[in-house]
Amino acid sequence: MMTTEIQSLSARINARLESVNYGSTPSTLYEPIRYIMSLGGKRLRPILVLLSYQLFRDDIEEILDQALAVEVFHNFTLMHDDIMDEAPLRRGKATVHEKWDRNTAILSGDVMLVKAYEMLLDAQGDTKTIFQAFNACAAGVCEGQQFDMDFEQTTKVSEDGYLRMIQLKTAVLLGFSLQLGAFMARKEKKTSDALYAMGVDLGIGFQLKDDLLDVYGDQEKFGKQVGGDILANKKTFLLLTALQRASAQQREELEFWMHQTEADPKAKVAAVTALYDQLDIRALTLDKMNEYFGKGLLALQELSVEEQRKRTLKDFIDYLIQREQ
Amino acid sequence: MMTTEIQSLSARINARLESVNYGSTPSTLYEPIRYIMSLGGKRLRPILVLLSYQLFRDDIEEILDQALAVEVFHNFTLMHDDIMDEAPLRRGKATVHEKWDRNTAILSGDVMLVKAYEMLLDAQGDTKTIFQAFNACAAGVCEGQQFDMDFEQTTKVSEDGYLRMIQLKTAVLLGFSLQLGAFMARKEKKTSDALYAMGVDLGIGFQLKDDLLDVYGDQEKFGKQVGGDILANKKTFLLLTALQRASAQQREELEFWMHQTEADPKAKVAAVTALYDQLDIRALTLDKMNEYFGKGLLALQELSVEEQRKRTLKDFIDYLIQREQ
Repeated sequence: MMTTEIQSLSARINARLESVNYGSTPSTLYEPIRYIMSLGGKRLRPILVLLSYQLFRDDIEEILDQALAVEVFHNFTLMHDDIMDEAPLRRGKATVHEKWDRNTAILSGDVMLVKAYEMLLDAQGDTKTIFQAFNACAAGVCEGQQFDMDFEQTTKVSEDGYLRMIQLKTAVLLGFSLQLGAFMARKEKKTSDALYAMGVDLGIGFQLKDDLLDVYGDQEKFGKQVGGDILANKKTFLLLTALQRASAQQREELEFWMHQTEADPKAKVAAVTALYDQLDIRALTLDKMNEYFGKGLLALQELSVEEQRKRTLKDFIDYLIQREQ
Repeated sequence: MMTTEIQSLSARINARLESVNYGSTPSTLYEPIRYIMSLGGKRLRPILVLLSYQLFRDDIEEILDQALAVEVFHNFTLMHDDIMDEAPLRRGKATVHEKWDRNTAILSGDVMLVKAYEMLLDAQGDTKTIFQAFNACAAGVCEGQQFDMDFEQTTKVSEDGYLRMIQLKTAVLLGFSLQLGAFMARKEKKTSDALYAMGVDLGIGFQLKDDLLDVYGDQEKFGKQVGGDILANKKTFLLLTALQRASAQQREELEFWMHQTEADPKAKVAAVTALYDQLDIRALTLDKMNEYFGKGLLALQELSVEEQRKRTLKDFIDYLIQREQ
């Protein structure tokens, strides 16, 4: 559970998001932005911006609009990823390319990226430094998405290759979010670098948790279909580790199920999960996840900031580790 | 014909473009960027940046890399527009989504937009001012493309609506190009505003010339298929003006041809062109084009810069007016 304090930050972010004016005409361009932004989500990234800034300063009202930039950027990537994945649903609602059409989703996504830059432009702190970091992050996210798509075409993905992919696709944006808080609090490079590295480690932990929840989550709490990654043959940390550790016979069995695209979904999920269980994949993934979260927590511990100021960020990391959805 | 001086600027731009490092891995992300940038083109936009800067300063070597940012941005829009238009060819070569696939074209385009921001970040002058103007321009271009797509669904497009669409889709980027030169030469707002307005007028003139060439161009010189817009029922200034001025019978005839998607291409082009001729569309479009180019030339005349410094930009505008391809 998020603590009350974090829930309150999340509520402030959601309230502020409702007042953002992305643009009005043509409505076919801007309506999909309002739509995807209204679908909700945990708002983890702007929360991280605020929590990072709060390590140093209290006036978060001043930076609320700029914290939203990372959420707009994140949703731009979702809008385009959903086209590429041909996903019909996003948070239980029709994706933009389904509700409108593909061209609309391409172009609305493009303008969202521009809007993210626009919202970031008013950030306090050094504009060049902020944009340099954001450009590197944005290019990284695109690279990660491309690696992810490339991985679909091959079974030869190493653990390192996978970790590099999720670092780019997911973790660098969490790194940038923490870094941005430090930039806006006008902290020195050493501090913003440390927060970036912390965010990247947390981001990798976060994605490994996601991979885990997809297989071992509690259907009641999870929100998405448990086993979705298995059905889609998604090359998660779990599948790659399983393929790597499997005996010849187990590998054959795994590959058999991967080729079953018309199989009964329940049977496929159960069979692959059973193989994961035999191979101890849950514990191995938890170990890896804890390794990264541990690095993040250690970095927070080492940050020269009064202990009491670290509390909310520490609570948030605990939430990321324990979350069940 | 471009003057020797402008040809030499163009050659410097092309040489510099070859040395740009967009990124390397994954190659599936960056190779399409190198590909589209290598297809050539007139490089009008970076030429405009250099010509604007040269109104005030001589050291164009210093701003060459930043001038390329507008060309990279322009090619990002082409890569995504080609997906939306399902265009098989760009400058006579396969489009990116044809040569690779649609997802690659979406994602490579996304990262190109980020690269344009990256290349602009090193521009001399005030970063915030430059990015504010670029954001407005980039959002405008997306709006223009959306209006253009919306227009495909209706025949009720007014002349004003059309001019607003091409202002956004095409002209604001020419405006930004001239403005950027002034920003980098650290000129005051009055001057950069005047250059922006000049660029927008030239951009509208440029697009009207494009519409004209598509019907009345010399096939030998034009490069593209003359009549391509007619065959695609594209709502150009010519078609909209014709629909507006047509008698009941002429309108019926125009609409008849617009519904002929399987007709002999030559017959359709000849018939529609004959209607344009009856309605004096060529002269009307030329008038409108000259009106905008005239405004641009007047703005150049009124700019308080030594006359001799204006010469190359003046030559370039003359080239835009007279170009046959």
